[in-house]
Amino acid sequence: MNENTGILTINVAAVAANWRAIAAHAHPSITSAVIKADAYGLGAAQIGPELYRSGCRHFFFATLTEAVSVRPLLGDDAHCYLLGGVPVGGEADAVRHRLVPVLSSLSAVERWLRWRVESGLSATAAPAALKFDTGMTRLGLAAGELEQLLADEARWLALSPVLLMSHLAVADDTYNPQNKRQRDAFFALGGRAKQLQPGLLLSLANSCGIYLGRDYHADLVRPGAALYGFNPSPESASPVSGVVRLTLPVIALRTLTESASVGYGAEYGGRKGQVLAVVAGGYADGLHRVLGPDGYGLCRGVKVPVVGRVSMDSAVFDVTAALAGGSAWVDGERLTIEVINPDVLTLDVLTARNQALGYEVLTSLRAGRYRRIYQAEAV
Amino acid sequence: MNENTGILTINVAAVAANWRAIAAHAHPSITSAVIKADAYGLGAAQIGPELYRSGCRHFFFATLTEAVSVRPLLGDDAHCYLLGGVPVGGEADAVRHRLVPVLSSLSAVERWLRWRVESGLSATAAPAALKFDTGMTRLGLAAGELEQLLADEARWLALSPVLLMSHLAVADDTYNPQNKRQRDAFFALGGRAKQLQPGLLLSLANSCGIYLGRDYHADLVRPGAALYGFNPSPESASPVSGVVRLTLPVIALRTLTESASVGYGAEYGGRKGQVLAVVAGGYADGLHRVLGPDGYGLCRGVKVPVVGRVSMDSAVFDVTAALAGGSAWVDGERLTIEVINPDVLTLDVLTARNQALGYEVLTSLRAGRYRRIYQAEAV
Repeated sequence: MNENTGILTINVAAVAANWRAIAAHAHPSITSAVIKADAYGLGAAQIGPELYRSGCRHFFFATLTEAVSVRPLLGDDAHCYLLGGVPVGGEADAVRHRLVPVLSSLSAVERWLRWRVESGLSATAAPAALKFDTGMTRLGLAAGELEQLLADEARWLALSPVLLMSHLAVADDTYNPQNKRQRDAFFALGGRAKQLQPGLLLSLANSCGIYLGRDYHADLVRPGAALYGFNPSPESASPVSGVVRLTLPVIALRTLTESASVGYGAEYGGRKGQVLAVVAGGYADGLHRVLGPDGYGLCRGVKVPVVGRVSMDSAVFDVTAALAGGSAWVDGERLTIEVINPDVLTLDVLTARNQALGYEVLTSLRAGRYRRIYQAEAV
Repeated sequence: MNENTGILTINVAAVAANWRAIAAHAHPSITSAVIKADAYGLGAAQIGPELYRSGCRHFFFATLTEAVSVRPLLGDDAHCYLLGGVPVGGEADAVRHRLVPVLSSLSAVERWLRWRVESGLSATAAPAALKFDTGMTRLGLAAGELEQLLADEARWLALSPVLLMSHLAVADDTYNPQNKRQRDAFFALGGRAKQLQPGLLLSLANSCGIYLGRDYHADLVRPGAALYGFNPSPESASPVSGVVRLTLPVIALRTLTESASVGYGAEYGGRKGQVLAVVAGGYADGLHRVLGPDGYGLCRGVKVPVVGRVSMDSAVFDVTAALAGGSAWVDGERLTIEVINPDVLTLDVLTARNQALGYEVLTSLRAGRYRRIYQAEAV
C-alpha cells in the first residue's frame, strides 16, 4: 500500500558500532547497554539482539513489562536489570523471566529478602542489584542507609547484590564539582562493599560519565544516549555516530499568490511568491519538539525553515530556496523533507536548537505514524 | 502480572456523551467526529465504534494507514474521510477500503479525475471531498483556484465532491475578526458550489468553531478536541466533560534526612524532612508536557508539586502535605499520584499550566508505557 506517512530509518549497525566504540574506550571495564523505554523509542527488540551479537551481556530496562517482552530475544547468558525495581507481587515474575531488580530503598531490600526466604530461594537463584543514591535524590539508598546495611555483614551477604550502582546527576556538565563528589561518595562505600563481597560489580557512569575519565568507569559502564547517537563528551568531537533518519513526504506544494498568514493562530506571515510544502507528520508524530522554534529541515540538501505552528498531522516548510531554479514540482511527486539526519541534522543539533532534552525527541518519535526501516548493515 | 506502570483510564462513555452534547447543540447540522491520530492518542478502535453506536456517521482520519485499520470497525453506512488525501498510487486502496480522500490542491483534483477515468469509476463509485483554504494556508485550494474549478461546470460535476470543507485558523480566539473573514469567504464560494450541486455538504467548524455560533455550523460540524474533553468555548463553562485519568504508582518514598539537590542538573533543592515520592512514568511516557513547569499531581486528593526535572522513566513529587498526619507508608504500598483527572486536573488545566497545546499532551501519552482501561459505562 502506498502510504503518505514518514519514514523513520534506524541504523542498528551504527548503534552496534557506537557500542563497540564505547566498549573499546571503557575497556577493561564491562560495557552494558541501556535499552529501557523501548531503546529510547528506537526499538529494543531490534537493538537488544544486535548488541548481544556484538558482545554486550548486560542490559538495563526500566519496567518489568518492557523487559519481559525483550528478554527472550537475548541470549541466556545476558544479565538483564530492572531499574524501576519490582512491584509488590512481581517478584516471582521477575525471577521467572531472569530479570534482576535494582533495589532502591531499605524497605525494598527488606521486602526482597523476606520474599526470598518465603520462596526458599538463594541469592544466586534470585539475584538482585542495589542502588546507592550519591546525589540524584531519586532512587537509591542514602549513604547512611547503605552504611547501615554494610554494617550488618551477615545481612549484606544474605543479600549479596550482583551489582551496586549509582547515577550521576550532572555528568553532562563536565566541570561541575558534584561529579567528583558523587564519584568519591560512591567509591568510598562501594569499596567497603567489595571488601565484603569481592565479586560485586560497581557501576557509576552513564554515557556522559564514561567520558568524564577512567576514574568514573568502575567495573561496568552504562551507556544509553550515546548508543543512539548523542555526543557523550560535549566538550569535544563526538565519539559516536548518528543512527536516526526521519524523512517526511510532501503532501502538498503551493506558491503563494499573495501574502497570507500560515497555520493555527495565524502567527506566521507568508509572502507572495513563497513556495510552501506541507509534510505528513505533526506533533502527534512527536514533531513539535523536533522542529522547535526556528526549526528547519533539509529538502534536496537545502535548509528549509518550518513556518507557522506545527499541526497535529502536518507541518509547513518554506521550500522556496530548495526549489529555486529546479524543475516544476507538482503535488504527489516524491518530494521529501528530512527533519532528522544522522550526519547534518543530528539529535545533538536538534537538542541544541530546541532546548529540549534530545532524549525527549527520540522517545516522542515512538508515538509517530511512521514506517520504520531497520538498517542492519553498516553504511 | 503485577506491573509498576501507570494506568491510563479512558472513559469512552464520556466521549460519546460529549459527542451527543455537541450534536444536540449543532442540530440540525450533522455532527461528525475527528478520530485522526488514533483519536488524538486515546484509541480510535475503541472510540470510533462507540461514536458510531451513538449515531455518528461521518469520521475524519489523517492518513490512509490509520483509516484502513479502523474502517472495518465502523458500520457500512459510515462516511470516512482522509484529511491528508491519498498518495500517488494509493487511490485504489482508498476506494477499496471505502475511504473518501480530501483533495487539497488543483493538481490533486486533476490527478484524482485522471485516475478515475483510467479506472472507469464514476464520482459515486469513487467519491472525493474538497478542501478550500480560507486562511489557514496549509492544505486546500486557494479562492482563485476554487473559482476556476467552479467556472467549469462540467468539470465540477465530473468531480462532484461529496463534501466541501475549510478549516478555521483562530477559532479558539473568539473575537478575532479572521473567523468572520474565513466564514464569509467559505460561504461565498460554498454557496456557488451548492447551486451547481445541491446535495453537496459544506463543513467549516472544528470544535471551537462550533461554539462561535450557528452561522458557522454549515451542513456538517467536525469536533475533535471537544470530544476528548477540551473546552471548545473558552469564554464560558465547558459543555463537555473530561474523559482521561492518568494514575502513576509510587515506586519509592523517602524522607530527606538532610537537604539535597533532586534530579538531573541538580536544579531543585530538597529540604530536610521533605517526603519525596518517585513515580513510574517520565518523559518517555509523555509526561514532560503534562507536568510542565510548576506542575503538580494529586495524591490522596492533595495537590503535590513535581520537584526537579522529569526523567525518562520517573518523576519526583513532594508528597509531604499529602502524607502529613497519615499512617506510615512504605515502598510498594499502592500509593499513587494522579497527573490527569477528568474533574480537577483536566486537560484544560494542564494546557493552561504548561502553555503547550493540550492536544499535544494527549497525543504524547500514546507513547506511554501505560496499562489502558476503557470505561464503556457512564459514570
